[in-house]
Amino acid sequence: MSPDDHLQIRACAERARDAARTLRRLDAARRHAALEAIARRIDDAREAILAANAKDLEAATAAGLSAAMVDRLRLDPPRLAALSAAVREVAALPDLLGPAQENRVRADGLVIGRRRVPLGAIAMVYESRPNVTVDAAVLCLKSGNAAVLRGGREAAHSNAALLDVVRDGLEAAGLPRDAVQGVPTAERAAIAELLRHDDCLALAIPRGGEGLIRHVAEVSRVPVIRHYKGVCHLYVEASADLDVALRLSIDGKCARPSACNALETLLVDAAVASTFLPRLDAAMAARGVRLRADPAALSRLPRAEPADASDWDTEYLDLVLAVKVVAGMDEALDHIARHGSLHTEAIATRDATAAARFQAEVDASVVAVNASTRFNDGGELGLGAEIGISTTKLHAYGPMGLESLTATRWDLVGDGHVRAPVTDPE
Amino acid sequence: MSPDDHLQIRACAERARDAARTLRRLDAARRHAALEAIARRIDDAREAILAANAKDLEAATAAGLSAAMVDRLRLDPPRLAALSAAVREVAALPDLLGPAQENRVRADGLVIGRRRVPLGAIAMVYESRPNVTVDAAVLCLKSGNAAVLRGGREAAHSNAALLDVVRDGLEAAGLPRDAVQGVPTAERAAIAELLRHDDCLALAIPRGGEGLIRHVAEVSRVPVIRHYKGVCHLYVEASADLDVALRLSIDGKCARPSACNALETLLVDAAVASTFLPRLDAAMAARGVRLRADPAALSRLPRAEPADASDWDTEYLDLVLAVKVVAGMDEALDHIARHGSLHTEAIATRDATAAARFQAEVDASVVAVNASTRFNDGGELGLGAEIGISTTKLHAYGPMGLESLTATRWDLVGDGHVRAPVTDPE
Repeated sequence: MSPDDHLQIRACAERARDAARTLRRLDAARRHAALEAIARRIDDAREAILAANAKDLEAATAAGLSAAMVDRLRLDPPRLAALSAAVREVAALPDLLGPAQENRVRADGLVIGRRRVPLGAIAMVYESRPNVTVDAAVLCLKSGNAAVLRGGREAAHSNAALLDVVRDGLEAAGLPRDAVQGVPTAERAAIAELLRHDDCLALAIPRGGEGLIRHVAEVSRVPVIRHYKGVCHLYVEASADLDVALRLSIDGKCARPSACNALETLLVDAAVASTFLPRLDAAMAARGVRLRADPAALSRLPRAEPADASDWDTEYLDLVLAVKVVAGMDEALDHIARHGSLHTEAIATRDATAAARFQAEVDASVVAVNASTRFNDGGELGLGAEIGISTTKLHAYGPMGLESLTATRWDLVGDGHVRAPVTDPE
Repeated sequence: MSPDDHLQIRACAERARDAARTLRRLDAARRHAALEAIARRIDDAREAILAANAKDLEAATAAGLSAAMVDRLRLDPPRLAALSAAVREVAALPDLLGPAQENRVRADGLVIGRRRVPLGAIAMVYESRPNVTVDAAVLCLKSGNAAVLRGGREAAHSNAALLDVVRDGLEAAGLPRDAVQGVPTAERAAIAELLRHDDCLALAIPRGGEGLIRHVAEVSRVPVIRHYKGVCHLYVEASADLDVALRLSIDGKCARPSACNALETLLVDAAVASTFLPRLDAAMAARGVRLRADPAALSRLPRAEPADASDWDTEYLDLVLAVKVVAGMDEALDHIARHGSLHTEAIATRDATAAARFQAEVDASVVAVNASTRFNDGGELGLGAEIGISTTKLHAYGPMGLESLTATRWDLVGDGHVRAPVTDPE
């Protein structure tokens, strides 16, 4: 990068810091008005957004991207309508900020309260669909934060058009355009350069493949929310209702295999292997799912391929499922402790003691009993919206809603309260 | 470091990870018993601890450490009694872990609950007094976490003796000794080597000077709780009760100047400068406090030295106070936004509007109205105990009690709940 790039990125970080300071001071009504203005602009600027998106689609097709990738990039009138509707939904969520809550009075009269405050300026680095540009901006603004956005190159035109729309909406509502910014240069080195400025940026949220997230965690001086991968298991325990186990397997693997909460490995108790595996085999074959099985499972799954050691740590993101027969709960828990990703783990069981032990001992952001791994999602869990999923326990664990974009700090009110007695010096 | 050091540190991280898995499974009574056993061992091993401490004191005196530093190192029977009493106090705090709370049932019958879980294995890197060895171990254990401790070299013998006591207590209660470990090598490079292992360690907490904290934040792949420094301000607003302002100034600066919540800069409204500054001058002169003043304050503070630009960002940790006259609230807020450290900020005022504006606009983990900056302390704020103070808003903001050593995750219970309808394939 050129020296000028360095200066421009520094200036971007400083503008974000300053805009965050302005946002802190705004009341909920002002933030709400900005979100409404953004939603309106999305509706009004449909033609310009679709024209920008057409350029990305053309380039993607020319570059030979898969049909699935091109579809992820695509915007069309229904998707844009859903996007502005999502903005209005976020606008309508309860506001979290404001004066101190939970006030209590100490015996000496000091009043102690807690106030929910924005984090400041948040850097989002993502590879995902262009609607993330709007979703991320709007969740940051709703929670009083400024945002610096760095989307994927393949969506560059769409992201730029959506960024213009967001900034026009901010301006229309009398908020600083710099409350949401793009990174000034498209080079990959700009990510590391931006994330040096921990005096301006409060948080970095990477969204995308594990490579991107490890890169951000490696280069950033700014604290990073990490979501490495989702290697989610379902343990079909000896007492399981096998109809339930099959439903959870099908939903977990087939409904949306590219999602991080999709099922990757099935652990089948030896006690039910001979009855369950043939049913699994038929159900997965009918849905085009390839199975990769350990030796014990292979004997019941004639169509499966033999799994190798790497399968147990692989997030396939595809219609592939690893299957292993385990001797019982101990082996299932050991396997999950070794290969789990702190994302989502599930058990199918009719035994309340087994369910309680699984929930007590498994380490994951969501632990489900007789429910699909696919419920690890901010919307499903009642958070209203989601800016990412954390698979470390720091700051947030699991889906991150608006509350994860805030912190609580302490407000004290006294009338001259001191800790040590103030006396005249001898 | 030698290849053997690398292996030993890796083994230490892996043992901590495994011990953390054992700790997760223990109920509150078992953790409580371990803490009681540790307290008892501290009482029983007094002679051995004091003998080890004598070696550190001798080395410190020989190395010419200041009397204040030597005093920080010193253990004696009353301090050991206070230490074991502190362990029993932590043992008596309410337990945070356990089965899911706040259960709610969705319309489709899926039960959603949240469970508080330990973080895992926590690395503490500190320069402080040897009692931190016990305090940190006990707070980690109480909250179900394993600990890897790396204390300062000057307290090496004392820390080793206290670590033995803690591990003996663990063993006596039937818990793994490896739930609390020291780092196997004393070299500084061991810190970076340890903090590479983010697959084993959940969190790093550095405690000490800004240099140590920046070093840890720079080298760590493990998420770090940052507490850079406390440049705390008191703004004496135009309507302030000047008796209150003086009390807060004296308590803030003089009660414990080496504390991070001590007052470093006084911002005095021009409207009260001529009445307040002479009183401040007399009070501070009587207590041996040197003043460093901007030109406007200098004219009222004949004994002060002129401040230079670096004073406004300096944490003196000493009987030195910077003083600046400001035109009003806007200038005070600008000064704090530029030079504050997100630690503690205070205002002396009798004007409710001014107080509300200060609390709404100032960004700090504690914002105090007519109360001393010294109240930013886990004990004072009712957290029961404190493992550190965070000056970023990530994970924790301000003093960190037991809750900051835990996370909440989601427990789901269904009866075959799936997100997408499971139908027969066409």
